[in-house]
Amino acid sequence: MLKILCGLAASCLLATAAVQAEPIPADVAAKAKLLRDQALQDSIAYELVESLTMEVGPRPAGSAGDKAAVEWAVQMMAGLGFANVRTEEVDVPHWVRGDLAADIVAPYPQSLHATSLGGSPGTSVDGIEAEIVRVTSLDELRALDKEKLSGRIAYIDHRMEPSRSGAGYSAASRIRRCGHYIAAERGALATLIRSAGTSHHRFAHTGSLLNRGIPATIPGIALANADADLLTYQVLQGQPVNVRLKSTAHFLPREKSANVIGEVPGRGELANEIVLLAAHLDSWDLGTGAIDDGAGVAIVTAVAKMILDSGTAPRRTIRLVLFANEEFDLDGAEQYAKNHRAAITNHIIGLGADTGAGRVWSLRSRVAESSLDLVDAMHELLEPLGVERGDNRASGAPDLGPMRKASMPVLSLSHDASKYFHFHHTADDTLDKIDRDDLNQGVAAYVAITYVAANIDADFGRLTPDTRAKRSCSAEDDTWKSFPD
Amino acid sequence: MLKILCGLAASCLLATAAVQAEPIPADVAAKAKLLRDQALQDSIAYELVESLTMEVGPRPAGSAGDKAAVEWAVQMMAGLGFANVRTEEVDVPHWVRGDLAADIVAPYPQSLHATSLGGSPGTSVDGIEAEIVRVTSLDELRALDKEKLSGRIAYIDHRMEPSRSGAGYSAASRIRRCGHYIAAERGALATLIRSAGTSHHRFAHTGSLLNRGIPATIPGIALANADADLLTYQVLQGQPVNVRLKSTAHFLPREKSANVIGEVPGRGELANEIVLLAAHLDSWDLGTGAIDDGAGVAIVTAVAKMILDSGTAPRRTIRLVLFANEEFDLDGAEQYAKNHRAAITNHIIGLGADTGAGRVWSLRSRVAESSLDLVDAMHELLEPLGVERGDNRASGAPDLGPMRKASMPVLSLSHDASKYFHFHHTADDTLDKIDRDDLNQGVAAYVAITYVAANIDADFGRLTPDTRAKRSCSAEDDTWKSFPD
Repeated sequence: MLKILCGLAASCLLATAAVQAEPIPADVAAKAKLLRDQALQDSIAYELVESLTMEVGPRPAGSAGDKAAVEWAVQMMAGLGFANVRTEEVDVPHWVRGDLAADIVAPYPQSLHATSLGGSPGTSVDGIEAEIVRVTSLDELRALDKEKLSGRIAYIDHRMEPSRSGAGYSAASRIRRCGHYIAAERGALATLIRSAGTSHHRFAHTGSLLNRGIPATIPGIALANADADLLTYQVLQGQPVNVRLKSTAHFLPREKSANVIGEVPGRGELANEIVLLAAHLDSWDLGTGAIDDGAGVAIVTAVAKMILDSGTAPRRTIRLVLFANEEFDLDGAEQYAKNHRAAITNHIIGLGADTGAGRVWSLRSRVAESSLDLVDAMHELLEPLGVERGDNRASGAPDLGPMRKASMPVLSLSHDASKYFHFHHTADDTLDKIDRDDLNQGVAAYVAITYVAANIDADFGRLTPDTRAKRSCSAEDDTWKSFPD
Repeated sequence: MLKILCGLAASCLLATAAVQAEPIPADVAAKAKLLRDQALQDSIAYELVESLTMEVGPRPAGSAGDKAAVEWAVQMMAGLGFANVRTEEVDVPHWVRGDLAADIVAPYPQSLHATSLGGSPGTSVDGIEAEIVRVTSLDELRALDKEKLSGRIAYIDHRMEPSRSGAGYSAASRIRRCGHYIAAERGALATLIRSAGTSHHRFAHTGSLLNRGIPATIPGIALANADADLLTYQVLQGQPVNVRLKSTAHFLPREKSANVIGEVPGRGELANEIVLLAAHLDSWDLGTGAIDDGAGVAIVTAVAKMILDSGTAPRRTIRLVLFANEEFDLDGAEQYAKNHRAAITNHIIGLGADTGAGRVWSLRSRVAESSLDLVDAMHELLEPLGVERGDNRASGAPDLGPMRKASMPVLSLSHDASKYFHFHHTADDTLDKIDRDDLNQGVAAYVAITYVAANIDADFGRLTPDTRAKRSCSAEDDTWKSFPD
């Protein structure tokens, strides 16, 4: 088109200006809008998350459910007609929650609803019985000397507040990941935390204890909010509060899991370039993994399927990767980055879904400055869905982290997280928490920008590789934002 | 006053007419309004339910918590300054929930969140493994022949819907109490029900299996709504669904519990007449008994305390009774009626609180026709609280049942039950479910009418004794409304 228009100098100038103002060709934008609107009426995403939660259910790394999930995903991808369906092996830990009894024994005996945190060691058969030392922050915990904490149980009573962005999760999950290290250094026998979550119901939120892969040396246990209220009430009465903990949590030998991969092959000269769609197949063991991350699996799979069925192959290859073991320490994502290091520059953009099924309210990015106009133009396609344009500091979904650090640009759609952390990592993460219309609004947003990314000439530039080490548990790193991505 | 006014015949007529139009003397109404408004700002009710839930917690009949609750109540009543604080012994069952494992073993293995229903026998150590037969009503269950159900597990998939009146609980609790009898007659090995409750979260609702005191002969187990969804999904796939149940539920020898009684003594010639305030002290074992019935304990105790502290003794004696073992089969209520049969006509009115801490929206009654004007006048005092006037067919709180059947009139304040059955009989029944302002609105309503009942000349007449037997589990009785009272 451009060449023809340039037959006349005046038209050429005009057309160039038009192209600069419209980074997305009209036909691509039109098709993206069509797919977007079609997604609002579709049922495939809901059917996928229904099947995964009802037929596989909990699928923590290394478990029988994990293996069943890999099999489910391979059959699902093949059944939907994706190309190059395959698994890539991932070595994963196999932690078993076992049983936990957590009881206040004095002054007012009561049983607590609590759960061991992922990677926690168990207790001896006799358990641990000790006095509680309550603090409300990591700083307060660091300020305790050994004499105060030694032989006792640290209780970190920080309440996470819900918000649309889910921003409270950064501080809360940092307490979960760092509190037990800091307490152990000061001689504590175990750590209790008020859950890193916002459930108003009586669910303890699990989650990984690991930070930089360093194993936990003392049990780390999360209390449901109501039970943290109970413990706090008793502490505030002023008498010593003693708690007894018995846990059979333990590690079994490592297991093999897999990233499951399928593709919508590109066509023509851009076919070697990859638009990477990511979600994680594993879940915690307590719920059926509906919002975390069945919803993500459903969204990105539905997106790929809609483009597969749209009549014309995309120019770039759309690669759908359902990652293994996001929850513990991103084993699947690390393995993918290792396997595909040579092809890193072919991965022109990554887009992941890992914050539930709430309505998408923002498009964030981390792309080269020169590509911001393109992302702004993509955002215009999402405005009818009520999506705002966010900043260019997104990290992308956690599973995209290793590839982003190695220079892959990312887009990130923020789902409304006001309720996400009510259910996140609890037994209450079940299918009934997913609203079909909200889920489809998400699919609509993802499919529009995925379609564009796969069908335009431009790409998103490259990022400067990020070689920073993982953050430590020192006070200097407390302000680090791990969420939103 | 009346006698003086009657010194002149014309005035006498006028005054009589005025008295008929205003059944509550102005000074009594004024004081009732004062107490009503004061209650809205009070903190005692919340402090009471906080203390009971945080310091005693679960207190099912016969348990250590039950004994601790009786001790708590005696000390609390004495501490608040009530007169004649005493216990009356009640013989109660002691059922122990034990452990339960409920798992779908085929076609898609998953663990179910479930709980044994009160009074359920356990299984053998090997458990029960059998195919599910799903029905959606007692009528469908009755229509099954023995061949269809024998050796299988009946699954009654009836969903209770929430409402302000809580009306759905009649049918749902009837399924809980009757389903297992009907299934056992047809050879079923166990009964699963979708919980008689409306929690949107992953809590199974417990509750008694007993109807007319007849013991259950097969295990009765309730599923959380999300788990009933899961089981139903698998059944509807069309393949046989097999479930394995292992339960250690069992009865221990019966125990002694007690009704705990305290009084605000009356003065003058009506001092022998009793205004009975009722709540129940026991709770189920899963939660801390905040809404059921910590809230009721708090409301009626706060009412009595406010009147005690109001400066002048009431004319009638206000008797506060915290009943033992409402949950299983009303042992405390039956014992009270037995102990106080001779004084039945002294009990001029009963008012109980046993539907949580939601806002009161209706004043219902069961009084003599001749007393309806009086109740209407009492209702006027509650209109500023947003309370409607309900019908004259109330049963009163369950603990008032035996006394009502023996002729005691009752008043009944309906609390908004839209959320009550989200938490009722679950582990989620904890203090954080109580809103202080809503709780106080309830105290305000109760204190106004209690004050009036204790300080007027009139009473509420007597009811015709009700000698009907308890309802059976036959189809003819299915339409019986057990709730709202």
